[in-house]
Amino acid sequence: MSKKILIIGGVAGGASAAARARRLDETAEIIILERGPHISFANCGLPYHISGEIELREALLLQTPESFKKRFNVDVRVQNEVLAINKEEKFIHIQNTLTNEKYTETYDVLILSPGASPFIPPISGINNHLTHSLRNIPDMDAIMASIEQNKPLHATVCGGGFIGLEMAEALRHHKIDVTLVELAPQVMAPVDIEIANMLHDELEAHHVELKLGKALKEVALCEETDRTLSLTLNDGTQFQTELLIIAVGVKPETSLAMKAGLEIGELGGIRVDESMRTSDPSIFAVGDAIETLDFVTGQAMLAPLAGPANRQGRLAANVIFGTTESYKKTQGTAICKVFGLAVASTGLNEKTLMRKGMAYEKVYVHAASHAGYYPGAHPVTLKLLFNPYTGAILGAQAVGKEGIDKRIDIISVAQRAGLSVFDLQDLELCYAPPFGSARDVVNQAGLVASNVMKGDEFIFHTESLNCLSEQQILLDVRTEAEVDKMGMIPGAINIPVDELRSNLFKLDQSKDIFVYCQVGVRGHVAARLLTNLGYTVKNMTGGFKTWKLVTR
Amino acid sequence: MSKKILIIGGVAGGASAAARARRLDETAEIIILERGPHISFANCGLPYHISGEIELREALLLQTPESFKKRFNVDVRVQNEVLAINKEEKFIHIQNTLTNEKYTETYDVLILSPGASPFIPPISGINNHLTHSLRNIPDMDAIMASIEQNKPLHATVCGGGFIGLEMAEALRHHKIDVTLVELAPQVMAPVDIEIANMLHDELEAHHVELKLGKALKEVALCEETDRTLSLTLNDGTQFQTELLIIAVGVKPETSLAMKAGLEIGELGGIRVDESMRTSDPSIFAVGDAIETLDFVTGQAMLAPLAGPANRQGRLAANVIFGTTESYKKTQGTAICKVFGLAVASTGLNEKTLMRKGMAYEKVYVHAASHAGYYPGAHPVTLKLLFNPYTGAILGAQAVGKEGIDKRIDIISVAQRAGLSVFDLQDLELCYAPPFGSARDVVNQAGLVASNVMKGDEFIFHTESLNCLSEQQILLDVRTEAEVDKMGMIPGAINIPVDELRSNLFKLDQSKDIFVYCQVGVRGHVAARLLTNLGYTVKNMTGGFKTWKLVTR
Ligand SMILES: Cc1cc2nc3c(=O)[nH]c(=O)nc-3n(C[C@H](O)[C@H](O)[C@H](O)COP(=O)(O)OP(=O)(O)OC[C@H]3O[C@@H](n4cnc5c(N)ncnc54)[C@H](O)[C@@H]3O)c2cc1C
Ligand SMILES: Cc1cc2nc3c(=O)[nH]c(=O)nc-3n(C[C@H](O)[C@H](O)[C@H](O)COP(=O)(O)OP(=O)(O)OC[C@H]3O[C@@H](n4cnc5c(N)ncnc54)[C@H](O)[C@@H]3O)c2cc1C
Ligand SMILES: CC(C)(COP(=O)(O)OP(=O)(O)OC[C@H]1O[C@@H](n2cnc3c(N)ncnc32)[C@H](O)[C@@H]1OP(=O)(O)O)[C@@H](O)C(=O)NCCC(=O)NCCS
Ligand SMILES: CC(C)(COP(=O)(O)OP(=O)(O)OC[C@H]1O[C@@H](n2cnc3c(N)ncnc32)[C@H](O)[C@@H]1OP(=O)(O)O)[C@@H](O)C(=O)NCCC(=O)NCCS
Repeated sequence: MSKKILIIGGVAGGASAAARARRLDETAEIIILERGPHISFANCGLPYHISGEIELREALLLQTPESFKKRFNVDVRVQNEVLAINKEEKFIHIQNTLTNEKYTETYDVLILSPGASPFIPPISGINNHLTHSLRNIPDMDAIMASIEQNKPLHATVCGGGFIGLEMAEALRHHKIDVTLVELAPQVMAPVDIEIANMLHDELEAHHVELKLGKALKEVALCEETDRTLSLTLNDGTQFQTELLIIAVGVKPETSLAMKAGLEIGELGGIRVDESMRTSDPSIFAVGDAIETLDFVTGQAMLAPLAGPANRQGRLAANVIFGTTESYKKTQGTAICKVFGLAVASTGLNEKTLMRKGMAYEKVYVHAASHAGYYPGAHPVTLKLLFNPYTGAILGAQAVGKEGIDKRIDIISVAQRAGLSVFDLQDLELCYAPPFGSARDVVNQAGLVASNVMKGDEFIFHTESLNCLSEQQILLDVRTEAEVDKMGMIPGAINIPVDELRSNLFKLDQSKDIFVYCQVGVRGHVAARLLTNLGYTVKNMTGGFKTWKLVTR
Repeated sequence: MSKKILIIGGVAGGASAAARARRLDETAEIIILERGPHISFANCGLPYHISGEIELREALLLQTPESFKKRFNVDVRVQNEVLAINKEEKFIHIQNTLTNEKYTETYDVLILSPGASPFIPPISGINNHLTHSLRNIPDMDAIMASIEQNKPLHATVCGGGFIGLEMAEALRHHKIDVTLVELAPQVMAPVDIEIANMLHDELEAHHVELKLGKALKEVALCEETDRTLSLTLNDGTQFQTELLIIAVGVKPETSLAMKAGLEIGELGGIRVDESMRTSDPSIFAVGDAIETLDFVTGQAMLAPLAGPANRQGRLAANVIFGTTESYKKTQGTAICKVFGLAVASTGLNEKTLMRKGMAYEKVYVHAASHAGYYPGAHPVTLKLLFNPYTGAILGAQAVGKEGIDKRIDIISVAQRAGLSVFDLQDLELCYAPPFGSARDVVNQAGLVASNVMKGDEFIFHTESLNCLSEQQILLDVRTEAEVDKMGMIPGAINIPVDELRSNLFKLDQSKDIFVYCQVGVRGHVAARLLTNLGYTVKNMTGGFKTWKLVTR
């Protein structure tokens, strides 16, 4: 007998599940219930249509109910909201939001892919016509209409995550002055602060005013004009703005699941097993609404990302039609364009490692995106986190103008495959001058981390600079020209690496040498030289450039 | 007692070995003997200085003897050619090519990194002042001087490998008409012909005249002008040219090793063990001069690439100073820019798999470099070769305008890590619209190959089209508009995928259906539909687009 499958939510997870289900079974009855007016739209493209970079609105609509019906013979019902699930009797309550008609639909299998909803903090005055969040096409339309009609000269984005940053950029495309308010001391929570500091520079360079470590406390609509908001931050600052975007994060859409008594996980997402099955064996859940397991820790995590949603949707369909597959955990690999920069990460960041009390070591590499002598090369700043006992890759973060996606993808694959930092040394990556280097950034990071693992190089971090004693010498091995131009770290003495051999008399062998250069390479050369001569030496990983980022 | 290390050849392998040796030991005596005038130069950048893209000649000189002395305390002797090795008594014969003075130098350890030399075919008349090969700075200078002085209007490049293609492009930068002569039916031997066909189109679009499957047979200098060559090909064609670049490949520089009685491998490279040790325990060899083992087959291979040379140089130094490390075999990951395209590959190609009689299957994916709705996306054409019994990745090739390096790097890491095509489905890659897709090209290739492995999709290749019988229906499921614009494969009938369900009566269920679409996706949807209805179906992997490439 053919199965009847109902799917709640018709975008990344839901549409993928429907398409795959149809490809697995021609006779199943498949119905998508979507409360919004569209299915299969490109959520991720919304900010880029607002900015004008994606010209055509239609470009965002990958499938329509009609095209989906034709291609996959799926009954797609947009503007049909599911109100409740009766899991005991296997049917759902639905309301057609156009006609308000209510009806029920039975199922053999139910797939939940209701996504996540923008978190709107309970702030007084926040519900007004100049305040928006961005999740779907109607949200986008509303923001665009607001820009079109009110022609705001100033907008405020509350929240410095992916969507907040993309919106800040989109608004700058319209030449609107933008203030970005973020509660944390940094934007882009998936990376650590020193990496985010490069974004802070980039944002300011593009005239986005940053208010970091600040929270929005109050919103007031100026009654006279109806076109201005007065915002108050938690430090008392007040300013006016004409458009407010709330992008402080999303929370899993679990209302249906909760009402139905499905198990909810500790982080507030729907709990599923590795087959995407909820606590009810006939109900599956996928996408932003669920909790998955973190690839590194094996603990529950929320990963509201399109790739996992698509994969989970397909997996649910596979399982429904009889395969025994399991979801392979989530690394959280993600990327964001921030004006001229890209920032990406995979695995865990340092903040998380510290919070979880996990052992880790970190190295920084700043190396050219492709051969430095070929035009257009830009530095890639890469932070690699690894287990200091095993060399296992814990996480990586990169930021730069070019080749950021590539480096994080490479490390993401390596991490997933269980490779260690030792293996990163020997990865064979594409090399010709326009594309890479004979030793790619990732190879270099592998070398550095392996040296640390083997004790060939002892490293120190900028944090240690605060507690250097009389017994310790801070040695800057950059050229005089560099020192003149960029300054030195307070307390350092300068002996350029190329003059070190003839200046050894300046270094008291009874003291510990803390060496640094601009990015770490010459520091390493100096450290090896001095180590081989019997000194006790540590090299500052990532050099002066990292110090600048950390101390911004 | 400190070691005395002599290194023959001061570029990729040699300089890397020297630098690493010094970082491992401050007291060793390290001497580099280099017959040319430079060390540590960027061979790979030579064509781009000829083209003018790299403006400054100095940019190619990464280190000089002086800078290397200062940084690494290495005695660098350029224009010192090693004439012979006495391995019994551990010394070498050297000639200073400036003074002609001959002398000897003893060693504890000798490292050979003499590279490879351009293969100059024994063709009558080939030795003339208008004929050049390109290996080093003097070669580059000579070619640039020839262009400058003779202002050739037409040049001929013999050989369509990396250097040949880069030179063809470099010459086009000077608006010189270029003819490319290549003995094989395709350029860029590491990829298969259908992939190379995209390069052929690109080369012709940039006015490079291709003479494929042709060999240069005779060269004659026109005595009157002294500025024109008359070339004769093996098919009798004759034409005139004013500059001839010979780039038909390189052969390992083994003259010293052979004379010294070191073992030479079956492919003509110096034989080394996995520690880079030659048959003489005090002599190491690295780089283009040696044979390594192929990652996939474990058989001997020649891989004249900069990455491996650098790694091997470092490895030799490590072993000399006591670590027990081994070289991790070579995948041959490589990339080349050909005008607006990049072409890259890793592992084995189909030609090689066929020649070796190894079992393989192949799939093609043509998918956007990043989300199609975000500006600037270009198709990535990816060919994935895998073991049809285990799913092991055998090799991959990609060509396109953007993101080619990334995809091959990802697959290269996956292959090295021992991942299978099943794992490619679930790789978590960076996704935001400017950088990728929720399902990246590599994920898609993994899905397709996994479907083939699991029998969820039976595929056929364009080769089968020649032997379709009456019992077989060739079904084109593209839209009418596509068919009108691009034509169909002869013998096909057209039913667009979205109209398939209502036209099933046109398909005789007793016949086998061979379905295709433009790239394979809709063919897959159709194939699944028909399979689920009981038809016997195969989908043409890569679709019409691949057929066009194969039959160019
Ligand atoms: C502006 C923006 C930019 C983004 N950029 C990226 C990016 O660059 N990279 C990336 O990886 N991810 C990005 N994402 C996240 C990505 O879009 C989501 O991870 C993905 O869409 C999740 O898929 P889903 O199926 O779980 O939920 P969704 O795609 O959100 O679909 C859920 C659907 O369910 C419907 N629904 C909910 N409840 C009901 C109900 N009771 N009845 C009927 N229908 C219901 C909703 O209307 C919604 O359409 C972005 C998201 C946004 C909003
Ligand atoms: C034009 C060009 C473009 C290239 N592009 C790329 C690319 O994009 N990507 C890539 O991966 N690879 C590329 N390569 C290949 C790469 O440069 C080589 O793989 C690499 O340089 C090999 O290093 P090696 O140390 O073995 O040899 P080499 O770098 O060639 O160094 C060998 C040195 O040994 C010296 N020598 C030889 N015999 C003696 C002797 N008897 N006495 C003293 N000295 C001696 C030679 O003069 C030479 O300088 C390119 C090569 C060329 C020529
Ligand atoms: C559009 C949408 C319905 C597509 O679903 P889909 O058909 O499963 O996915 P794709 O178009 O990627 O196609 C993948 C299928 O084609 C197959 N395929 C891909 N390339 C192929 C090729 N060259 N040859 C044969 N098959 C191929 C895959 O194997 C897969 O089929 P399978 O699941 O049966 O194995 C769904 O992704 C969607 O709604 N997306 C929009 C929403 C969204 O993702 N938003 C967030 C990001 S902006
Ligand atoms: C220039 C040349 C001598 C460099 O040799 P090198 O010093 O070994 O190589 P690199 O500059 O890449 O530096 C790598 C070293 O720095 C270390 N390093 C890199 N980044 C680092 C960082 N951020 N912090 C600390 N150490 C770092 C690496 O661990 C490695 O040291 P190790 O070998 O002791 O582990 C050599 O590559 C060369 O001659 N190249 C030109 C020729 C050539 O390659 N041609 C072909 C391509 S065009």
